[in-house]
This record gives sequence, structure tokens and C-alpha cells, in this order.
Amino acid sequence: MNTVFDLSKFTIKPLNEVFFDIAKKRLDSLTKPIGSLGILEEIASRLVAIYENSMPEIKGKLIFVFAGDHGVVEEGVSAYPKEVTAQMVFNFLRGGAGINVLARHAGADVRVVDVGVDYDFGNLPGLISKKVCWGTKNLAKEPAMTREEAIRSIEVGYECAKSAISEGYNLIGIGDMGIGNTTPSSAITAVITGRPVEEVTGRGTGLTEEDLKRKIAVIKKALALHNPDPKDPIDVLSKVGGTEIGACAGVVLACAEARIPVITDGFITTAGVLIAYQINPEIRHYVFASHRSEEIGHRAQLRYLGLRPLLDLNLRLGEGTGSALAMLLVEASLKIYKEMATFESAGVSESRYK
Amino acid sequence: MNTVFDLSKFTIKPLNEVFFDIAKKRLDSLTKPIGSLGILEEIASRLVAIYENSMPEIKGKLIFVFAGDHGVVEEGVSAYPKEVTAQMVFNFLRGGAGINVLARHAGADVRVVDVGVDYDFGNLPGLISKKVCWGTKNLAKEPAMTREEAIRSIEVGYECAKSAISEGYNLIGIGDMGIGNTTPSSAITAVITGRPVEEVTGRGTGLTEEDLKRKIAVIKKALALHNPDPKDPIDVLSKVGGTEIGACAGVVLACAEARIPVITDGFITTAGVLIAYQINPEIRHYVFASHRSEEIGHRAQLRYLGLRPLLDLNLRLGEGTGSALAMLLVEASLKIYKEMATFESAGVSESRYK
Repeated sequence: MNTVFDLSKFTIKPLNEVFFDIAKKRLDSLTKPIGSLGILEEIASRLVAIYENSMPEIKGKLIFVFAGDHGVVEEGVSAYPKEVTAQMVFNFLRGGAGINVLARHAGADVRVVDVGVDYDFGNLPGLISKKVCWGTKNLAKEPAMTREEAIRSIEVGYECAKSAISEGYNLIGIGDMGIGNTTPSSAITAVITGRPVEEVTGRGTGLTEEDLKRKIAVIKKALALHNPDPKDPIDVLSKVGGTEIGACAGVVLACAEARIPVITDGFITTAGVLIAYQINPEIRHYVFASHRSEEIGHRAQLRYLGLRPLLDLNLRLGEGTGSALAMLLVEASLKIYKEMATFESAGVSESRYK
Repeated sequence: MNTVFDLSKFTIKPLNEVFFDIAKKRLDSLTKPIGSLGILEEIASRLVAIYENSMPEIKGKLIFVFAGDHGVVEEGVSAYPKEVTAQMVFNFLRGGAGINVLARHAGADVRVVDVGVDYDFGNLPGLISKKVCWGTKNLAKEPAMTREEAIRSIEVGYECAKSAISEGYNLIGIGDMGIGNTTPSSAITAVITGRPVEEVTGRGTGLTEEDLKRKIAVIKKALALHNPDPKDPIDVLSKVGGTEIGACAGVVLACAEARIPVITDGFITTAGVLIAYQINPEIRHYVFASHRSEEIGHRAQLRYLGLRPLLDLNLRLGEGTGSALAMLLVEASLKIYKEMATFESAGVSESRYK
């Protein structure tokens, strides 16, 4: 199935410290006490280093929403019926979902990609059709995907991102839609971070206490059955993953390779970041964590990746909603960096400690 | 000096629970798991209750930057010379300061008000001249203001806000500029919250450890000298306050009276919110805390007011920069509330628990 996609061949450069020095020099010349814009200054510095440009420009903002179904839903791990994945794809294309509202607010475009929805959309205008499978298999009973399907799902994200980057988008956010997808995300997170399943498994879209217990049991059973190898991210993704999670990993790899910042949303997309990180840990420098999800396992993911979330608003919707909100902050930081007057140009006196 | 402004006469209505019910009903009908947009949903509900409108509209966004000087600067409590207050006013009017950049980003207008700068701006285009005094007196030696000046500073903010509201602005943020103004803010915070001076006094624009110790000693000396009465906010404001802090209090009172949400920035503006709260605690329902400032005393203020900050980005610039950023989130929450599709309209299945 896959012939050209060699996961060992990504050359992702670490960030060049010289650009942090360039950014610091400019930030410290602006009419504000040194460091007084906190995280905004850190974001700006990282953008300068990622773009390797002392005066970078955000030319186009894009959110990908990758949709896929999950065989494990038959175990009763979600509050919503599986049909909602396809129903929400229609909602995305009509512009009525949370991500549509927030992407419009952030001035970002949205691309909806069918990576593995168990529904025949036919030739639906606006939908990017990249179906890897008609939903994954039930990971409680068998591997969610074949190894080839797992690689292909990463490739879908990679191709979508490369194409967007070639069109001029240079700030990309990732989002997900897939009823049941907190279950594979918890499984991936437990395997890769090494944390206990209980610690990384939450209520998803709103499970009861009893259903949460069943979900935890399902994940434990799956991990015991498949014994995924954390050092082999394709093994993890194929056995207990999902197509939309693989696609998120592919976007991260493409962005890091092309030196484009990529914003991760919550628990599901960050499971994709974990997969990408296991493929090449250098990706970490290119990823911004948009928010701290209410979904409990997100904490372990962020700790493992060493990422600090920009927002903490008790969000747990997914779809890239956090990514869209965080774009507003990322853009704010770059505007501060580029548009503020310097002490010299504004004729403002500097600190007496300077 | 003041004849018409009766602080006991503000009628500020508590929020009507009926509007929270109306908001919840709509939020729960939108195509997302119930409550999954967390704080954004809380903001939207509060906006509906504040405006008493089931489908409110943000018609105009405005940030006030109130500027004033502080006699206490002669005690060496700031890293910057006093002249910077006036220099920054020129910077605001030219659009080169942090607040200009972030207000443009948020689509908000900026109004710069001279409440008490020790500089003769003459008839400077763009500047709103409401000078109450030529800088406050040195609070370490004498009361910062007379009681009449303190009331007048509140009145300035109140008048500015009333005027803006009559022009159609209905989302207002507050900001401050005044070299040395963390010192009066710490003094106000210590008096009103009852916390020790050490716990509410920080490094401002970047003091050394030694200078911080002197600043704490100055504040303790001032409090011992004046013994301000926390139950009498005018007493507190006049003895250890600042004109721009009083003006912030006035905006809060005007907004709460007119049922307009008001966004506070960091430590200085929230000292103004404390003054307004002591005048009428009902103002609390109308105030959104934009962010958690790096300035340590901000925590005690937010606890005292029972406000949860929307952002936590280690900001400590002031000027209303946090207010501008938070406007983006407040507006996002209202767009979610108004623009998202409902389960019914989008044909999406609901939770099995419903």
C-alpha cells in the first residue's frame, strides 16, 4: 500500500540558538519592561527561530480537522453513537460546529479530511477524501489497523500539510473528530508515557462513573492483548490507535520538516504528537500546545513532551477548537514583536538597571 | 470640587438567574458535548445575564488607558524614571505601545486619559485631559491625594465610561500607565484584603531584591502613618492610592450600573476594582479578570474578589494589554453561543445519557 513514505528519513533540524538571540535583542528594545510580556515573548522568540527569519510573517492560517471512526465504540466507551462522526463532518462542512465558529474568529481556514470515517460520503463538496479504512477495528479484540493502514494515516496528514504549506499556509493547527477516540488516545498515552491507564483515561464526551470503569478495563485488556512497543510508534498506532490520530502525527512531521509552527489541540491531537515525537523527537520544538484539556490524560502528554499549554479554559471539545483560540495568541505575540515601538524610536527612557 | 457625584447612590442590580437558565438551555442545545467548552460557556452565560439579552451583541470594544504620576517615585520604588509616564502617553497616542498593538489585534479602540500626569501636555490631539492633580504626593510622607481629588479621580473614570457607553461601546477594558503605581496598588491591596504587605508587594517593572525590600518598607511606613480605613474606600484611595487607580474604579462602577461587562487587566487596574468593590460589592458580577499577573499581589486581589483569570501568560506590562487579549476570548465565547448549530438544526444525534 505504502511505497514512498520512509519514516526514518525525516530530517528535522533543531532550532538555531542564534535566532533566539536575535529575537531577544529586539524584544528587549521594545517599549516595555524587559520580559514583561511573559509567554508572549517566548512564543515570538520561538517563531523567529522556527521560521529562521528575524521578521517573520504569518501568511495563512489553517486548521485541519481529521475525522475517523473507531470499532471500539461497540464496547460502549462513548456517550455518543458512532453515527455522530459522519453527522459532525456534515456540520463542519456547513460551518456550524465549534471549530468553524472559532476558526472564523481567528481568521483561519478549515479543512475537513475523511481519514477513516465509516460512512460513504460519496463525492461531497468541501470534504477531502483520504479514507484509509471504514473505521478502525475494535482494539479490544484485534489490532485497530494494519501496519500499512497506520503508516498510510500518517501519510495522509503529511500529504495534506505539505500541500497546504505549498499553497502558502504557514501556521497550522490540528483538530480531530471521531466518536470513541479518547479510548485509543488513552491507550497510546499509557503506552508511550508509561503512565498507568487509570491516570490517563477520562470521561471523554461525558461518561458516567460506571462507564468510565468499563472504558479503563477495555484499554487495559487491549494493552495486555497487543503489548504495543512504545519504541515503535507504528506498532502503537496500528494496534491501539486511530486514523485521525495518525494523520495528526503526519501534519506535525510535515510542519517540523518545513519549519512551520504547528498548534496541537487537546488530548486526541496530542496523542498524534506523541506518535510523531516517537518517530522524531525534534518535532517538539515546532509544536505549540494550545490549551490544557479537561481530559485528564492530556497532562501526562504535555509533561512527556515538555510543552506548556497557552490556555487553561476547561475545554474538552476537540475539533481543533483550542488550536484556533491559541492562534489568536500566537499571532498576538508576533504582532507585539513586529509592531511595537522601540525605546529609541519612541524616545522613552530605559530602566535604571540597564 | 465635587458636587454631583454621590458614591452611595449607585444602584447596581445583581444578575438575574433567569438569564443563566436561558443561556444554559441554548448552550446545551449546541452541537457539542454538554459543558465541553468550559470557561467559554461560563463567559457566554454571564454575558447573557449582564446584558439581560438572550442574544446579545458586542457593538463596540474599548480599552481605557488611564495615566497618572506618583510622588512616591522619589523613594526609589521604580526601575524607571518618572518621566516615562508622559513619554508613554506620547507612545500610546502614536500607536507604538503594547496596548496599541494588542487592541488593534482585538479590534478594540483605545482612549488615553490623563488623570494625573505630572507633565503639561497642552492641547494634545488624541489625549483626553482630565487632570485631577500634577501627580500624587509622596504617600510615604503625606496623603497621596485629598479626599476631593480621590473622588474626582473616580468621577473621571465614571464620566469617561458613561460617555463611551452612550456612544455605543458595550465591552470595556481598563488599563493603566503610571511609573511607580505598583506601590499604591500594593498599599491598597494590603489594606483592603488584609494580607501582609510582603505578600502583596512585588518587583513591578523589575526591581532588584534590595530595592524590593525598600519598597516594602516604604509601604509599611505609609500604612502606619495614614492608617487607612478599609471600610472607607475613599480614605484608602486618597491616602495611599493614585489617580489612574481611582479612574479604573469609576469605569467599573459606570459599567456595572449600565449593565456592561468590564475587563480588568492586572495588578494596578484590579486595585481599582477593589476600590469599586468596597463602594458596591455588586460590581463583582460585571467584572471579568483577563489574566493572572506575574505581580504577586494580584493573586490576593483575585481571591478577595472571587474572580478567576482567563489567561495565565506571566504578563506584567499593564496598559490594559491583558484586557485586550481577554476581549478575544470574551468575543469567542459569545460567537460560540450565537453562531454554533444546534443538534436539531444540524441533524446530529445527542448523548445517550440525555
